[in-house]
Amino acid sequence: MNELLRYFQRELPGINGYLDAEAESLSGLVRDVARHIIGSGGKRIRPMLTLLHARALGYDRDDFHAIACALELLHSATLLHDDYLDEAEIRRGRAASHLVFGRTETILAGDALLALANEMGARYGNARLCWLLARGIMETAVGEIEEIQFSKHPTLDREAYMRIIIGKTARLIECACRCGAALAGATPEQEDAAGEYGLNLGIAFQLVDDALDYDSPASETGKPEGGDLREGKVTLPLILFMEDCEEVAGDTLLTLMRDSELTDEQCAEVLAQVQDAGSAGRTREEAAVYVERAKACLALLPPGEERTVLGQAADYVLTRTK
Amino acid sequence: MNELLRYFQRELPGINGYLDAEAESLSGLVRDVARHIIGSGGKRIRPMLTLLHARALGYDRDDFHAIACALELLHSATLLHDDYLDEAEIRRGRAASHLVFGRTETILAGDALLALANEMGARYGNARLCWLLARGIMETAVGEIEEIQFSKHPTLDREAYMRIIIGKTARLIECACRCGAALAGATPEQEDAAGEYGLNLGIAFQLVDDALDYDSPASETGKPEGGDLREGKVTLPLILFMEDCEEVAGDTLLTLMRDSELTDEQCAEVLAQVQDAGSAGRTREEAAVYVERAKACLALLPPGEERTVLGQAADYVLTRTK
Repeated sequence: MNELLRYFQRELPGINGYLDAEAESLSGLVRDVARHIIGSGGKRIRPMLTLLHARALGYDRDDFHAIACALELLHSATLLHDDYLDEAEIRRGRAASHLVFGRTETILAGDALLALANEMGARYGNARLCWLLARGIMETAVGEIEEIQFSKHPTLDREAYMRIIIGKTARLIECACRCGAALAGATPEQEDAAGEYGLNLGIAFQLVDDALDYDSPASETGKPEGGDLREGKVTLPLILFMEDCEEVAGDTLLTLMRDSELTDEQCAEVLAQVQDAGSAGRTREEAAVYVERAKACLALLPPGEERTVLGQAADYVLTRTK
Repeated sequence: MNELLRYFQRELPGINGYLDAEAESLSGLVRDVARHIIGSGGKRIRPMLTLLHARALGYDRDDFHAIACALELLHSATLLHDDYLDEAEIRRGRAASHLVFGRTETILAGDALLALANEMGARYGNARLCWLLARGIMETAVGEIEEIQFSKHPTLDREAYMRIIIGKTARLIECACRCGAALAGATPEQEDAAGEYGLNLGIAFQLVDDALDYDSPASETGKPEGGDLREGKVTLPLILFMEDCEEVAGDTLLTLMRDSELTDEQCAEVLAQVQDAGSAGRTREEAAVYVERAKACLALLPPGEERTVLGQAADYVLTRTK
């Protein structure tokens, strides 16, 4: 993983500096919200993937930051609206924005970041890039809606779960990779391979995220352990666990989750059972399949530093602890 | 105004049909919200301006609906978020969406309509169109933020007022006109003239809107009379009225408005005073200046039906009663 680490260490300051400068350019009422969500860290996976694909496909100019950072801001915008609507209290170990800055500021900051991201993507005069970004925004909005709809009527349907994680996470990561390819003027085949890598990586990323929610301590992730369960979110670890349970027990649990009637004791009990059953580990095994699919897409790229780093990034998704 | 009426009667069914079909394509949770806000009427000024400018500059294809309707959906998206944040109860004579469908559905519908609008604009593979739309979205978001910021610290500053109505209304109308020109492959000079027409028309439109709030009965506008005053919004009729009052009276009123402490009786009294002083009429006189500026921009267009209609549309802004 040395190449991956070196690459991130080299490029992250530029990406963070660009993000900070864009946040600084926003209007007073929302600037602090933007600073808060951007400054709270995050792995900058989306901008890095755009950069890596652009360079892997021969792009050698230094003006990649606007489109790369657009993807990060888009992601930040959805976090702001999601956290407000979910009434989340914590984001990346810090108080959620709506609790610090208020409802109006948070909603409008989400709108402004979305608008800014879009404008940054349009700076290149590249119609393909605009189209990809527009579609990415659309798919992310739809994914967000479907996730909330699903949480109002939770089921143990794996197909529905997959559709939701693709919509809310994987499509935007696919978009980041495609944008890198489009910036480099890639062929449709090359762009599709970049997209396929991103889609599979995104699925694996979310599967691991959902596993971490069950098996990683809050001190590591910055999120409360078992948070999904408490918030009534049905994810793969729970689905795998319930598949081995009595049907009646599953229905009862779903009803309690839907009606937000799960007590702290019941939560702790289900959490312990899911952990004992090893469902988080089985979720990681599924993620590993998608990581392999992602890596297979790299064969189309010319060998070089970026291809190596993209391979290591895929492996890192499986081993990350936060 | 015969040409204007005929043009609208001929083109509105196509525009409304396209809007309905796009709303129908949205995900379940937000579809009803989109139907509600789109179906509640509205003058469709933005799509008509896009169409008129495109055709005036020689565009003869029938695929203008996506970009024209994108502007309307963008406008609808901002109404949804604005009404929720303002806690507005009425929109176009109907209950505001958040009261009918709830907070989550309304915020997400706004996000989805914004995303959809953006995607519709990207369908042409025209980078200039994408850039214009992206900038229009950005300017509208900034305008929305500045308006809310201003309402938290209201002043009788005309410059601040003008900046706000340009941001929240006129820039998007400018954008609609520029998009029509860009669709037709206009020269930069032609696009600038279209933009200048739209900017001035948009300013006039908002000035008249603010006058109507003081001098048109609720039965006509579908909004409660004196609503701006009650909501603490400082607009030109009030600024003009206060310029003739004692400074102390103005400061007291502003403080009451900012703290939402204006009683119904005080509201009714100020409303009557503003009406008696003829401030709404003086606001219309200012609007007339911008209407003339807008009409002057039409000289660059070739004579024809669209140029006539654009001239009549500018005049109509002054005479409308809702």
